[in-house]
Amino acid sequence: MKTLKSNPRRDGYRMPAEFEPHRGTLMTYPYRSDVWRLDGVPAQDNYIEVAAAIARFEPVFIAVPPHLFEEASARYHVPNVTFIPLESDDAWMRDNGPTFVTNDEMRLRGVDWEFNAWGGDFDGLYKPWDKDDAMAEAILKIWDVDRYRTKGFVLEGGSIHVDGQGLALVTESCLLSPGRNPHLGKNEITNMLKKYLNVKKVIWIPYGVYDDNTNGHIDNIACFVAPGHVLIAMFDDPHDPQFAMSNASYEALTKARGVDGKKLKITKMIFPDKLIYSTQEESCTVDEVATAIDRPAYKRLVASYMNFYCCNGGIIMPAFGQPSDEKAKAILQNLFPEREIIPIYSREILLGGGNIHCITQQIPKGLANDEN
Amino acid sequence: MKTLKSNPRRDGYRMPAEFEPHRGTLMTYPYRSDVWRLDGVPAQDNYIEVAAAIARFEPVFIAVPPHLFEEASARYHVPNVTFIPLESDDAWMRDNGPTFVTNDEMRLRGVDWEFNAWGGDFDGLYKPWDKDDAMAEAILKIWDVDRYRTKGFVLEGGSIHVDGQGLALVTESCLLSPGRNPHLGKNEITNMLKKYLNVKKVIWIPYGVYDDNTNGHIDNIACFVAPGHVLIAMFDDPHDPQFAMSNASYEALTKARGVDGKKLKITKMIFPDKLIYSTQEESCTVDEVATAIDRPAYKRLVASYMNFYCCNGGIIMPAFGQPSDEKAKAILQNLFPEREIIPIYSREILLGGGNIHCITQQIPKGLANDEN
Repeated sequence: MKTLKSNPRRDGYRMPAEFEPHRGTLMTYPYRSDVWRLDGVPAQDNYIEVAAAIARFEPVFIAVPPHLFEEASARYHVPNVTFIPLESDDAWMRDNGPTFVTNDEMRLRGVDWEFNAWGGDFDGLYKPWDKDDAMAEAILKIWDVDRYRTKGFVLEGGSIHVDGQGLALVTESCLLSPGRNPHLGKNEITNMLKKYLNVKKVIWIPYGVYDDNTNGHIDNIACFVAPGHVLIAMFDDPHDPQFAMSNASYEALTKARGVDGKKLKITKMIFPDKLIYSTQEESCTVDEVATAIDRPAYKRLVASYMNFYCCNGGIIMPAFGQPSDEKAKAILQNLFPEREIIPIYSREILLGGGNIHCITQQIPKGLANDEN
Repeated sequence: MKTLKSNPRRDGYRMPAEFEPHRGTLMTYPYRSDVWRLDGVPAQDNYIEVAAAIARFEPVFIAVPPHLFEEASARYHVPNVTFIPLESDDAWMRDNGPTFVTNDEMRLRGVDWEFNAWGGDFDGLYKPWDKDDAMAEAILKIWDVDRYRTKGFVLEGGSIHVDGQGLALVTESCLLSPGRNPHLGKNEITNMLKKYLNVKKVIWIPYGVYDDNTNGHIDNIACFVAPGHVLIAMFDDPHDPQFAMSNASYEALTKARGVDGKKLKITKMIFPDKLIYSTQEESCTVDEVATAIDRPAYKRLVASYMNFYCCNGGIIMPAFGQPSDEKAKAILQNLFPEREIIPIYSREILLGGGNIHCITQQIPKGLANDEN
């Protein structure tokens, strides 16, 4: 692994869309008792369920803090799922893992964005976050993939989506949040994304999901399902703040234009039938500390079907135990007729503040430094 | 992991015998094409056979060079066998892995001896060896076990055996070789072993196995099978140099006294019926380089039944495809009536210059820093 001084656009590398072929999937093992109830054990089971589903389609590698490596290796034996002892602060590989880029010769490189736990001293979720910030480099070192480091530019992988053909999709609420890059304006951030993702156009929508403590990551509200084709979650009840938020974002999408100057294709996803709240039991089994946000009871959870993960031949989709699960599955099956849709009841992951997409990171098909 | 300035004896830590209970086993994945034929693939299969046998009794952790981690994880799915991406020069965890010590409270620590590839610039087997020398520290870091580092004192784990009750067993040919610690005399080396293994007495025998390029490691010729009880391999043919070497070592054992002043108990092991030689085909598929020793054809291999590994409830024993395999197995079964003896045909490992004991390293039962 070398750290490069240029950027992907200059070197002819681009971020492939998630629906392009993968080499494998990266995840991190949850453990911190001030985020995950009961010392993380229920969440660990839930993460491994997700890993096992993905592993039917492609290899999965899970970073496990060294002190839990032996225990995790003894507890879970899942074919095609491999643990790697690597330090971490928490377990959201989407957000602090590398963003892989490839070139025309299928060579891999990785963008290592600066990570500050979703807002740093302004409104970050825990501190310190140095181990999480070091994760992408550690991964790139193991795979021997060269690295771009955006020192001074903060970004999480969950706050961007690309269609692989020149478009990126982001939310204003997150990327313009004072906890990210307050020294940069919207144009400057757009230019950074153009350079590091090698896209021609960045589409901004105003909002993500209501009360999402990522400041509204794109990956909980909308994504590309094909080049120039966006799926966005719409809310039925006009009395709920999500209704106006989704409508405003939808509106922005209708006004946006693709690389070819044409309108985007837009499909609507549903939200779960009923709002989902944390319980007293779930809240009181999370440790309370000064260095991480509280996990209160009766809190509205950021449940969204959009937080699915697209892997080789499969879609791993969050399920919430509601009739809407089947409807959401049908929408995805219609959009991805050749892929198997696997719903996973992921409440333990949701309690931590994210879902299946947030805990996964694709390694696109491609070659490391020493491979031909 | 902290690096400690004291030594195990001062801190009340001792090296347990291999036949005491284990927490698990460490190994390293072979890959270098100038040691292992056909880029190491046949050796990899043979190593995994050994790992799978041990894994029936205790967890096995295999350090795999990062560039092969993904490939190895995809190729081998063995329950209780876990890969760890860690750099290495070659694959002899016995020799460059940590020597674990424990105290009365079952707390673990590790001795990280300086490693110089069996002789450094004098008669080492390859260079450089810095990755191998860094292995023990990397392992201790993952397990969070504190470390003693013997900077300036070179030793391989395969050159020592202990009975866990105050005795160590070593060969003069290795420990007094000019490629190890030429600045130290026999007494000084004895004192180092007393300090770092916390033994009361070091028993020196003159020789190991003929033409062993480790300068005659103890672990190819003799070991403790119980406190104060030594097993040593004797050679039948008086015209062979091994005959005189084994006899001289046996003689030294008969003169030695245990901690209690009494004679040692000595049992005799056999050698394989017939000498074993490398073939033309085996030799010509190893890459020739200036930085590693040659692997010539028709070379006598250091085949010895003594190179077995003792794990929880099992003995993993080298087999050579000769009638003597059964006799050796019977000798071991008699010494270890409660353990299952598993012979493994290990020619690919033998071609690299060692055998099952050389490629394994026990983690004794015990607790890491954060465990209770």
